[in-house]
Amino acid sequence: MKKITTIPGDGIGKEVMEAGLYILNKLDLNIDYSPQEAGKELYEKTNDNLPPETIKSAKNTDATLFGAVTSIPGEKSAIIELRKALNVYANLRPVKSYPGVKGIYDDVDFLIVRENTEGLYSQIEETTKEGAIAKRVITKKASQRICDLAFQQAIKEDRKSVTCVNKANILKKTDGLFKETFYKVAKNYPEIKANDFYVDATAMYLITDPQRFDVIVTTNLFGDILSDEGAGLVGGLGIAPSGNIGSENGLFEPVHGSAPDIAGQNISNPVSMILTISMMLEYLNQDYYADKIKQATVTVLKEGKVKTPDLGGSNKTMELAEEINKKLQEI
Amino acid sequence: MKKITTIPGDGIGKEVMEAGLYILNKLDLNIDYSPQEAGKELYEKTNDNLPPETIKSAKNTDATLFGAVTSIPGEKSAIIELRKALNVYANLRPVKSYPGVKGIYDDVDFLIVRENTEGLYSQIEETTKEGAIAKRVITKKASQRICDLAFQQAIKEDRKSVTCVNKANILKKTDGLFKETFYKVAKNYPEIKANDFYVDATAMYLITDPQRFDVIVTTNLFGDILSDEGAGLVGGLGIAPSGNIGSENGLFEPVHGSAPDIAGQNISNPVSMILTISMMLEYLNQDYYADKIKQATVTVLKEGKVKTPDLGGSNKTMELAEEINKKLQEI
Ligand SMILES: CC(C)[C@H](C(=O)O)[C@@H](O)C(=O)O
Ligand SMILES: CC(C)[C@H](C(=O)O)[C@@H](O)C(=O)O
Repeated sequence: MKKITTIPGDGIGKEVMEAGLYILNKLDLNIDYSPQEAGKELYEKTNDNLPPETIKSAKNTDATLFGAVTSIPGEKSAIIELRKALNVYANLRPVKSYPGVKGIYDDVDFLIVRENTEGLYSQIEETTKEGAIAKRVITKKASQRICDLAFQQAIKEDRKSVTCVNKANILKKTDGLFKETFYKVAKNYPEIKANDFYVDATAMYLITDPQRFDVIVTTNLFGDILSDEGAGLVGGLGIAPSGNIGSENGLFEPVHGSAPDIAGQNISNPVSMILTISMMLEYLNQDYYADKIKQATVTVLKEGKVKTPDLGGSNKTMELAEEINKKLQEI
Repeated sequence: MKKITTIPGDGIGKEVMEAGLYILNKLDLNIDYSPQEAGKELYEKTNDNLPPETIKSAKNTDATLFGAVTSIPGEKSAIIELRKALNVYANLRPVKSYPGVKGIYDDVDFLIVRENTEGLYSQIEETTKEGAIAKRVITKKASQRICDLAFQQAIKEDRKSVTCVNKANILKKTDGLFKETFYKVAKNYPEIKANDFYVDATAMYLITDPQRFDVIVTTNLFGDILSDEGAGLVGGLGIAPSGNIGSENGLFEPVHGSAPDIAGQNISNPVSMILTISMMLEYLNQDYYADKIKQATVTVLKEGKVKTPDLGGSNKTMELAEEINKKLQEI
């Protein structure tokens, strides 16, 4: 029996959560839920976008499934605070082409391992006479930990190389440290190829030659930017899953946001959430069910009979989820 | 009579400078040159990668044409120091599809206006007990100046909208200030549409919907990343020009680097340098010649008879330059 905290949040977060749980409940798994709240809608009622109960539940259950939240000007971001509270230091963002999904290439398959606790997300900013200053914090400990996890993950997923993405030509101390730490850690994994690129060159190669990437490990904001670029490359945020992993907790969320522009119409794509659930099941050592969900989803994408608008169709969120369930029952 | 400082630098910087000056000298213009040195090769002889004479010449001539330099670990970047010394606060990077050049789309045409003096390029970094910290400096003055120039440039190029790219949901103070300043400046240009996007979303839209962009104004490192992504989008760095503009100086350089991997083979693409020269001539109010060079280059790209390897051909740097000169004589 596993217990999962669910946080639908705002906008399409709720729609994809509904679709995701619909699929999860079709599996022959014994799951107990702890439904919790966060986000802007909650804030408007309670003046709190991430209540202590939500954090407590996320900490004390086996994993947390998160939809999306709308950011509130002047308030701290609920998802960023939750990532920090759970100390989920690694944000795993697979970038993969799927047959039936129109991307730039049909053979992209790499994993972005994004450092999730520091860098420009330290949220240490001060106002000065002339303007403002933000601190980009890079520590040896966090760099070591994330690089180590990237190589471990490369081995687990049977990948051949890990690329450290940095801007050490300008950020000589902070990214100098990150890069140096990367190559030190790499020595412990002689079977995996290690190399590095500057973030600007990487942003270009992702378009001109994405097949050269296998695992990318990078600092927080570069990971944020490159994973959205990666999503664009393979067909958009509607199919991009992610998992935030720490030594004690796992927090799983689609890469997309709450999308206020399309929220309420039930046309959001549930695939990123369903693939996110597959990642969560893997984390919970339910590889059999993780694979099953992934297979069913990939089959539906490939067949292309039921598609939400972002995929070029006109189906609703739950119609796509139902189609995935049909396949699930056939596997 | 105009006087231009030329700094070939390292690697392919020298090759494209040769090709560029070959074209420039074919024009019926009265140009005087001040040839100067910078970069790694010079550093290896003199222990200085940006001598005072070079800076002095760049300051005292009408414009500076720069090739590329190889970065030196532990040393400050010559190009960054030169941009600072000349106070060229705006880095203009057009991203444009050309017929004959294989990009993702054939109708991309936007301009990135990159702030060039601060942000994460402040080079204020300190080592701490746990690691290192870099300061991202955003001032009101520099933000105002760059946003203003972006709108001015939009008017000059007959463009309809300016998009402010930021990460104000996380960098609430620094990018909060940048975004706020942008909308204040926008009020002075009611004829131009103003909007803003987060940098991660922008990195995705550049792939999925680049036609929505007209002028992008952004902070230093975001501009660095997005302009390389933009180059990838329209066919690579071989055709990407740039101009660094200030109130007293102009510094013009192709977006590409010194490319040690292909240097010495004379296969580098001179188009980015030749289009860079066109931008320089515009800056020098030689619009007639600026247009002429651009037209000749576009015609040669379109015909596709002479192509360097990056364009899918097997011609040499000077062969492509000679072909452009042929067209130049016909126009
Ligand atoms: C919503 C935002 C705070 C978040 C981030 O910047 O990490 C998002 O862009 C993401 O990538 O998960
Ligand atoms: C070479 C490097 C210092 C430079 C930068 O980061 O500005 C380059 O990437 C560019 O875009 O001109």
